[in-house]
Amino acid sequence: MNQDLTALVRKINDSAEFNRWCGFEVVTCAPGAVELAMPWRTEVGQYAGFLHAGVVSALIDTACGFAAATLVGPHLLAAHFSVNCLRPASGQRFIARARVVKPGKQQVFTACELFAVKNGTEKLVATGETLLTVLQSET
Amino acid sequence: MNQDLTALVRKINDSAEFNRWCGFEVVTCAPGAVELAMPWRTEVGQYAGFLHAGVVSALIDTACGFAAATLVGPHLLAAHFSVNCLRPASGQRFIARARVVKPGKQQVFTACELFAVKNGTEKLVATGETLLTVLQSET
Amino acid sequence: MNQDLTALVRKINDSAEFNRWCGFEVVTCAPGAVELAMPWRTEVGQYAGFLHAGVVSALIDTACGFAAATLVGPHLLAAHFSVNCLRPASGQRFIARARVVKPGKQQVFTACELFAVKNGTEKLVATGETLLTVLQSET
Amino acid sequence: MNQDLTALVRKINDSAEFNRWCGFEVVTCAPGAVELAMPWRTEVGQYAGFLHAGVVSALIDTACGFAAATLVGPHLLAAHFSVNCLRPASGQRFIARARVVKPGKQQVFTACELFAVKNGTEKLVATGETLLTVLQSET
Repeated sequence: MNQDLTALVRKINDSAEFNRWCGFEVVTCAPGAVELAMPWRTEVGQYAGFLHAGVVSALIDTACGFAAATLVGPHLLAAHFSVNCLRPASGQRFIARARVVKPGKQQVFTACELFAVKNGTEKLVATGETLLTVLQSET
Repeated sequence: MNQDLTALVRKINDSAEFNRWCGFEVVTCAPGAVELAMPWRTEVGQYAGFLHAGVVSALIDTACGFAAATLVGPHLLAAHFSVNCLRPASGQRFIARARVVKPGKQQVFTACELFAVKNGTEKLVATGETLLTVLQSET
Repeated sequence: MNQDLTALVRKINDSAEFNRWCGFEVVTCAPGAVELAMPWRTEVGQYAGFLHAGVVSALIDTACGFAAATLVGPHLLAAHFSVNCLRPASGQRFIARARVVKPGKQQVFTACELFAVKNGTEKLVATGETLLTVLQSET
Repeated sequence: MNQDLTALVRKINDSAEFNRWCGFEVVTCAPGAVELAMPWRTEVGQYAGFLHAGVVSALIDTACGFAAATLVGPHLLAAHFSVNCLRPASGQRFIARARVVKPGKQQVFTACELFAVKNGTEKLVATGETLLTVLQSET
């Protein structure tokens, strides 16, 4: 079952141009939980050479959306998201681990932690959360 | 004076690789207010072809940071930011207008509106806010 | 029409025990906009004698909910809200001015400013926003 | 050591008029973690008889502030906080469990879960987070 989930989520990930440009990789999927990774390269940097807050946000928002999609399917839109920047995000690789906090028919609450990997060691660099709206089918 | 501000902010903008890749343009700067624009291209899209939430976030967070920098200088880090996605973001061009809500010695509160321009008409597609920490010089 | 709105909102306000204890007063209502006030008294203070963040939050969240109710009726629940504490909240009276940023069938985005009134002068002490879910009738 | 912490936090709690009115009880304190409880009574209700969002917020914000105080002392102000309302908050007793996510010299990131206790069973009803500013001594 998780293989089907992973295939579904990878398909969504591959269909998004920005995700492909960033190099997002869907590592693992389980019901209500997703791990998303991205290698560092200089194009995703801000002025001081850290990971740009927009890409921090993209990783968190995307992982949260995928976690929600494992439970309620892909017809979702982020309504609100927020990010806490705990430390300057610097590393060779970034891993976002998202989970569903509370699913629902109308909305799904999710949360995410973002880790930077440097010389094999993970460090928590940001946390975030996304509130997603389930699109009502118009039957 | 605003010309100096604009020059300062453009310099920061040009020094960030991700901003250059996105095509961010600093349109206008005044003390406590910045307008930042970006043309649409498919690489910034999510799976349904709208502007990716990460780029929505990058525009808002960057414009907020620039607005703060016009008042307190560039030694700032975003501590927290949040985004409301009001409508699917679709257009030929996007304009983020940020302003400082409350400056301070330790932190700066900012807010931003993001507009999509389609056939010459602006539509509000997202709002957001960023709380920035002023880096203390270690003298 | 605004008189009917005001009557509706005052009725909701009077039906909430906590609002009555706080002394919330519905000052004015228009479609998508509400002004809510509360006199200071020591029982709403935190340890340093300023207005307690919980009451700051109650004023903002309540005014936002009322602003939404003027457009979509009272069947609403706050899903997410956030507050920026710009300055210590100190005054003889507090005024929350809320407005709908974007109404919708499933959710309503609102924003609010909170002012402290001291010796006749208003000062902005907090801003906030609330994302409300419209409860689906189960017909 | 935790007894001293608990004594310190209880002293702050007792010095806040609103906390006393609400009936906040400091249950346990450890470095970076606090549990705060409050019995239900009708005065803390909103119009439908659930716990008022302002009191939800007060519990979360207060527990977060206390958790931060266990690590950096009481000279703190909340700069930003947010709350996710997962379910209508209804119960005989409410328990807020807060923890420090990232301490710092200038700011402290905290997070909190709020549980409603009904007939001996805990249910998660809200999550929240608070970003606190450490007040700089003016020596």
